[in-house]
Amino acid sequence: MPADLTADAGNRDDTGGRPVVPSTGKLRPLGLREVRITGGFWGRRQTVNASATLEHNLGWERRVGWIDNFAATVEGRVGSDRRGREFSDSDVYKLIEGMAWEVARTGDAFAAESIAELSKVIERAQEPDGYLNTAFGHDGQGARYSDLEWGHELYCYGHLIQAGVALMRTGADSPLVDVVIRAADHVCATFGPDGNQGFCGHPVVEMALVELYRVTGERRYLDQAALFVERRGHGTLADIEFGRSYFQDDVPVRDADAFHGHAVRALYLASGIVDVAVETGDDELLAAVERQWEATVARRTYITGGMGSRHMDEAFGDDYFLPPDRAYSETCAAVASVQLAWRLLLATGSTRYADLAERTLYNVIATSPADDGRSFFYVNTLHRRRVGPLPAADRHHPRAESTVRAPWFDVSCCPNNLARTFASLAAYLVTADDDGLQVHQYADADVSTRLGAGRPAGVEMRTGYPADGAVVLRVTETSEVPWTLSVRVPAWAGDGAVLVEPDGTRRPVAPGVAAVTAAFAVGDEIRLELPMEPRWVRADPRIDALRGTVAAERGPLVLCAESTDLPAGRDIAAVRVDPAAPLAPDGDGSVLAVGALASENDGAWPYAAGAGAPGGGTTPAPIRLVPYHSWASRGPSTMRVWLPAVDSD
Amino acid sequence: MPADLTADAGNRDDTGGRPVVPSTGKLRPLGLREVRITGGFWGRRQTVNASATLEHNLGWERRVGWIDNFAATVEGRVGSDRRGREFSDSDVYKLIEGMAWEVARTGDAFAAESIAELSKVIERAQEPDGYLNTAFGHDGQGARYSDLEWGHELYCYGHLIQAGVALMRTGADSPLVDVVIRAADHVCATFGPDGNQGFCGHPVVEMALVELYRVTGERRYLDQAALFVERRGHGTLADIEFGRSYFQDDVPVRDADAFHGHAVRALYLASGIVDVAVETGDDELLAAVERQWEATVARRTYITGGMGSRHMDEAFGDDYFLPPDRAYSETCAAVASVQLAWRLLLATGSTRYADLAERTLYNVIATSPADDGRSFFYVNTLHRRRVGPLPAADRHHPRAESTVRAPWFDVSCCPNNLARTFASLAAYLVTADDDGLQVHQYADADVSTRLGAGRPAGVEMRTGYPADGAVVLRVTETSEVPWTLSVRVPAWAGDGAVLVEPDGTRRPVAPGVAAVTAAFAVGDEIRLELPMEPRWVRADPRIDALRGTVAAERGPLVLCAESTDLPAGRDIAAVRVDPAAPLAPDGDGSVLAVGALASENDGAWPYAAGAGAPGGGTTPAPIRLVPYHSWASRGPSTMRVWLPAVDSD
Repeated sequence: MPADLTADAGNRDDTGGRPVVPSTGKLRPLGLREVRITGGFWGRRQTVNASATLEHNLGWERRVGWIDNFAATVEGRVGSDRRGREFSDSDVYKLIEGMAWEVARTGDAFAAESIAELSKVIERAQEPDGYLNTAFGHDGQGARYSDLEWGHELYCYGHLIQAGVALMRTGADSPLVDVVIRAADHVCATFGPDGNQGFCGHPVVEMALVELYRVTGERRYLDQAALFVERRGHGTLADIEFGRSYFQDDVPVRDADAFHGHAVRALYLASGIVDVAVETGDDELLAAVERQWEATVARRTYITGGMGSRHMDEAFGDDYFLPPDRAYSETCAAVASVQLAWRLLLATGSTRYADLAERTLYNVIATSPADDGRSFFYVNTLHRRRVGPLPAADRHHPRAESTVRAPWFDVSCCPNNLARTFASLAAYLVTADDDGLQVHQYADADVSTRLGAGRPAGVEMRTGYPADGAVVLRVTETSEVPWTLSVRVPAWAGDGAVLVEPDGTRRPVAPGVAAVTAAFAVGDEIRLELPMEPRWVRADPRIDALRGTVAAERGPLVLCAESTDLPAGRDIAAVRVDPAAPLAPDGDGSVLAVGALASENDGAWPYAAGAGAPGGGTTPAPIRLVPYHSWASRGPSTMRVWLPAVDSD
Repeated sequence: MPADLTADAGNRDDTGGRPVVPSTGKLRPLGLREVRITGGFWGRRQTVNASATLEHNLGWERRVGWIDNFAATVEGRVGSDRRGREFSDSDVYKLIEGMAWEVARTGDAFAAESIAELSKVIERAQEPDGYLNTAFGHDGQGARYSDLEWGHELYCYGHLIQAGVALMRTGADSPLVDVVIRAADHVCATFGPDGNQGFCGHPVVEMALVELYRVTGERRYLDQAALFVERRGHGTLADIEFGRSYFQDDVPVRDADAFHGHAVRALYLASGIVDVAVETGDDELLAAVERQWEATVARRTYITGGMGSRHMDEAFGDDYFLPPDRAYSETCAAVASVQLAWRLLLATGSTRYADLAERTLYNVIATSPADDGRSFFYVNTLHRRRVGPLPAADRHHPRAESTVRAPWFDVSCCPNNLARTFASLAAYLVTADDDGLQVHQYADADVSTRLGAGRPAGVEMRTGYPADGAVVLRVTETSEVPWTLSVRVPAWAGDGAVLVEPDGTRRPVAPGVAAVTAAFAVGDEIRLELPMEPRWVRADPRIDALRGTVAAERGPLVLCAESTDLPAGRDIAAVRVDPAAPLAPDGDGSVLAVGALASENDGAWPYAAGAGAPGGGTTPAPIRLVPYHSWASRGPSTMRVWLPAVDSD
């Protein structure tokens, strides 16, 4: 291990491990020893992830041969025996990363043993020069780096490096750390300034290399990441059927107007760009990503926070192309969006990034896994018209057409991306700076860190969120010096949020940051009260696909209507709602809308001349709305988030 | 040439050649010598097809190497030298078919010489056992029939046979006829009852084999087609990522509810099923296709007649999934839909099939080619939000993303499918039975045939349609026996059509068939007057993507708004129209609507709580609407067919 690594105590990392550790920025991230989720909405999901998903994913990776590919490489039979897509190595690495965070979080023995076992298998497959990939470079396979467009070799290194960084930062003693250093050095030697001038069709190695620089202090990794970023956008990769915009090789990264092309690629790339910009002090580059993020959030993002509208190329669409039916909104794009928002939040301190992260966490990331953590949505559509074929429990499934959550996919990035997100989630809730703590996401959590000059600061956060809107922050550690405890007030709260100060003073707080600066005593409480009345939301008229419809939200949750709650025989297409009438909470997180069920006249041709609509009559009916993240958890159903208004036909 | 062929004078074919010649059915198709288009809307397109498109397509097929593939096969270098996709042979065959019809229509010398030259090249590439394909079975290629899912070998035979049938029916003396018979016999020997139990991932060989049976009288071709039809739908082909519905191997053809999966595949298959059903007298099978057609037209068809909503797999979507933006509506699916409608019309006599054919001809097939016949839309979206990259004139283009028409595509089925459709179009206008003539489509055309007992019947049809609604049918040949001249009254005419009888009597005629039975004299005239006032049309509320919008039609033409007609700097997204106000024709085929241009407020997040829409104000403005088929012919533009109503924001 390089000397720099052990020398860098700040990174080694007595915080318990953090996924992103910028050397500069407005806010300092906290590690898994500094923030612990103790229960509640996210605590339950962490428990399920640890007790079910990690083992589920590992079992499937064995079963479908992705782990054996490494042994097959060692044994010289990978050219004929290899199974899975060209990027399957990366899913083993993502899972290891998730397990590393889980070991740090709980000391989970299954995760620790699995890492040890997988590391041995992987280590043996590495070539003497550091090359490591089961899909290229062996007898019967394409040559190394012969297909940068689709080969995913650098993408696989990216996830390998992220796994290695997680192991280093959590203090794990794994042979994989040396594997990672050798692989990264091989990448720098091969793709350096005088080497291969290419880059990977699927970004991720950029952010991985920056993090490896941060953990090791070795500048060459940062330089290589910067090279990869700047090479992109000049038409170096081949022009594929989807066009070079698919892998963001159409426009230099500084010049793009908005995120475009394949959504996961675009968002991983943007994260890497932020990392490079922060470490090189390139403010213009950081501003370019901020500008692209703003445009994307204003014009290319679903109400759920989901990104990517197009099935064909899993891509962002044009501005305002956000059809709710067949919305793609890939789970992995949501994971990537949260990673990007976190980087931008650390760099700028702006709560808008945490707002989007919250929306995405509750409405995409929480939507994907089933309650038991053993099946997943790969795409997260906002409208399901028809109950399609159900996935067989015992086989993998086409990724994009799930009627219900499926246990595994031919492309199974999402289950592993969820695993690493849930295991490390505590690190995305709270930050610190010299003068205080900043709470960005609400959860039952215990926080303990040091401020400037080593002054202790700790809070216990307790909340029934998102069912309940009260968030209590109780000071558990403090010093005699005043410090600032601040909490994000979400944009969705409008003018309805109230902060209760330690002395009981209630004051309205506007979206943004609400802060209390005081010489706190242990036991002091700050209480944030968020308005939890359900509300109707309308879309910008330029989102044509949503014309005449409304959606309901409650707190951070987007709601939906599901056929499960309709009278027998009625289809989700019949639902109409009256946005002029108030929404009424009805227990258990559900909400009742005043609405109607429409009857349609079947005709031979669905387009009719004249002013009258071709529709039939409507019958008044209450319409039950449930949290979108829970849809299809009561069995197969049809569903929609955007509901036609009663007068829209 | 088999003896049966020359023996069968009815097929040989003194009609001048017909694409579809059922042995039974309600109506008898007329051939290219019996119906000649003399000018007008379709006459212009036939002229451009003959003088430009045929040569354009042949030039590109040489340039991109698809024709050289045959020589490469003969010379043993095809394994390394082959160019184009696996189905490129079929495009050479489609073009030959188009040329064959053109030779029959006009005696075109370029077409005749090209057929002769191509036939020689193709003939040499056929194997002794009849196998003929440049993509399989040679050194360095996959084995014959090793990839029925994607290999397209039988699909290529299908188009080869269709070319051969066109040559036979038009009386051409081509070596390709023997090639076709040998290939078809090879197919029967290989895939017969005791042979390979598979079938092709892309249907077309079914209808081709039935037509070969019809022209040769050889029953084995019909039997083989029936085998292919009945084998389908039982999960024989591999389960691909798109699912087996993609190639209709998910449900037996008799059991399907509607057309589904890849649209061109579904529609070619349905045509073949009708052909088999008609020749085997299988009324239940015919009824299944009629039922599926009805469901598809009522729930899965664009207002243009376009079919196929999904880019990803070029497929039909679920019922009512008909988004106007990124509508797929492939040109080839329109060609296939017209072929299918023609078969159903011949079998049943129902005008609903001709109604859909008219809509599809004017609004998809006429939309695809540029005025000069040298560039084409592959997909025919109903809403273009953004002017994207323009296709370079000198290279082929990704097929699905054209901002303007492109000269060629990696997959260039559409230009060739258009070529064969335009060259044979006269055969789709008029039919006969023992007692009279039936006019299904309006065009300047001269018709001359024999009714029962050889009685002559002829009419001259003259019209300014679709600009003008008057269609005059003047009797040019008749006998002393009374006969019936009937004409379709389109459904879109509502209660506005009038028939003027030879004696000047005017009578309102309802949609369906308007007929006059008389002992006609030469010079007698029937005049159909169709209501050409432009009209607003609304969609079934279950087509969610169209909620709050209206479209305008005039006669058979769907209209659209195009950015070309907006004030500088205004986007197509700003257009609003008032469907309560009348539409006013404004010369040159365009129409003015009362409407407005909307201003939008840009915000950070496009979803807002509360009853008010996030939109800004509107400014009254007349909105010009032009025929959809002409869009993008004045340069790159943004465009939409479905226009938001003024009160819909």
